Amino acid sequence: MNDQHATLHDLRERMASFVRERDWEQFHSPKNLSMSIAIEAAELMEHFQWLTTEQSEHLDPAALQEIGEELADIVLYSLSLANHLQIDLAETVLAKMAKNERKYPKEQVRGKAHKYTYYRKQEGEK
Amino acid sequence: MNDQHATLHDLRERMASFVRERDWEQFHSPKNLSMSIAIEAAELMEHFQWLTTEQSEHLDPAALQEIGEELADIVLYSLSLANHLQIDLAETVLAKMAKNERKYPKEQVRGKAHKYTYYRKQEGEK
Amino acid sequence: MNDQHATLHDLRERMASFVRERDWEQFHSPKNLSMSIAIEAAELMEHFQWLTTEQSEHLDPAALQEIGEELADIVLYSLSLANHLQIDLAETVLAKMAKNERKYPKEQVRGKAHKYTYYRKQEGEK
Amino acid sequence: MNDQHATLHDLRERMASFVRERDWEQFHSPKNLSMSIAIEAAELMEHFQWLTTEQSEHLDPAALQEIGEELADIVLYSLSLANHLQIDLAETVLAKMAKNERKYPKEQVRGKAHKYTYYRKQEGEK
Repeated sequence: MNDQHATLHDLRERMASFVRERDWEQFHSPKNLSMSIAIEAAELMEHFQWLTTEQSEHLDPAALQEIGEELADIVLYSLSLANHLQIDLAETVLAKMAKNERKYPKEQVRGKAHKYTYYRKQEGEK
Repeated sequence: MNDQHATLHDLRERMASFVRERDWEQFHSPKNLSMSIAIEAAELMEHFQWLTTEQSEHLDPAALQEIGEELADIVLYSLSLANHLQIDLAETVLAKMAKNERKYPKEQVRGKAHKYTYYRKQEGEK
Repeated sequence: MNDQHATLHDLRERMASFVRERDWEQFHSPKNLSMSIAIEAAELMEHFQWLTTEQSEHLDPAALQEIGEELADIVLYSLSLANHLQIDLAETVLAKMAKNERKYPKEQVRGKAHKYTYYRKQEGEK
Repeated sequence: MNDQHATLHDLRERMASFVRERDWEQFHSPKNLSMSIAIEAAELMEHFQWLTTEQSEHLDPAALQEIGEELADIVLYSLSLANHLQIDLAETVLAKMAKNERKYPKEQVRGKAHKYTYYRKQEGEK
């Protein structure tokens, strides 16, 4: 099952079974899951810790494989948190993207990486 | 579009457009995206920083809304990294889950939260 | 040399030599060091990931030893960042503490863990 | 009081008073403090999120001021954790540095940023 066919629901169900079969819901409190996502994010970062941003664009297949697994762990804990809190992930993600589109109007931010507060300040200065 | 219907591909395409329209691919290097995921994970943790694990189970609707948005940011950057590295996220997540199923056999780990190295050690001691 | 006698300067010098002798200044850019601190912080968190806040108060000697080492890594990278940016750490830390004392007046926050924005809001509502 | 004169003990005592006066020991469990360090580390990273490693070497005074404050927060929570666990920080840091010196012999690692497992593997291949 690949990205063309897998729905968020499919993946959530798989993760929910994995956790339930191990009786791990008790450990998957929101607090613990937020730590788990941060821990996996750090393991992902470890692959890039001493690389320049430029070097991080040129990864060998072995590194890419490991990086994919770290990313998977982040997604798995994110799915478990969505399960635990009964959040619809697609709706929430699309709503957040719509909010980001308003916060960062494309004409204004094109090719720039400032934070949105920077743009609001400029707006205010006009 | 909700979790029942949204495929990973749908969300990836939306995120790819968002990034492309802002000419932000140049900032979305793997190194920078790994930092971004970790930063958003920390913003998620901030909601639980001073709560007990027990308290983190009882969130009011306002907190839940904010937590959903932080989780969305983590997912958005994860989608962007998958786009950037051309990783099929569903395949990678399912493969990692299969690996975790072997690493943590359900009969052995039920209701326990030790790391898998602990189980291998026990195995070795038999 | 223990906490009674070691100055920040002593520790900074030791770390500076360690880095210089390995010709590692080139890797210790502020960006990389900020990632390194975050990575070590995550390794510290890993020890507490599945514990309740209460359980984290009762650590066995072996865990305590490992936790001390993770904390040391955080401090080491912090010293290196201070070296790299030529920040006086004691002055900066004491200035930040003075700022925190104003932000969180002790009469007002005693026994409470809300963020300071919460206190400002209350103040505004009076 | 600057790095030339401030001992770790001086700073620890100041932080201990700050926490005690607010009756915040109850929140400063090892688990919560590990999250707090990680959260502050992420706030530090935020300053470098979209910069190249090279750009992160050239910070303007305003950025440097803010970065110093984030670093201070990391140190403050580290001091509080040392207080809470009664760890001598200078001893632990110096012991860890001695361990790192053995793990990364300077003749072998000069100018290279590989992880120490890489060096052990090479050693084994001889």
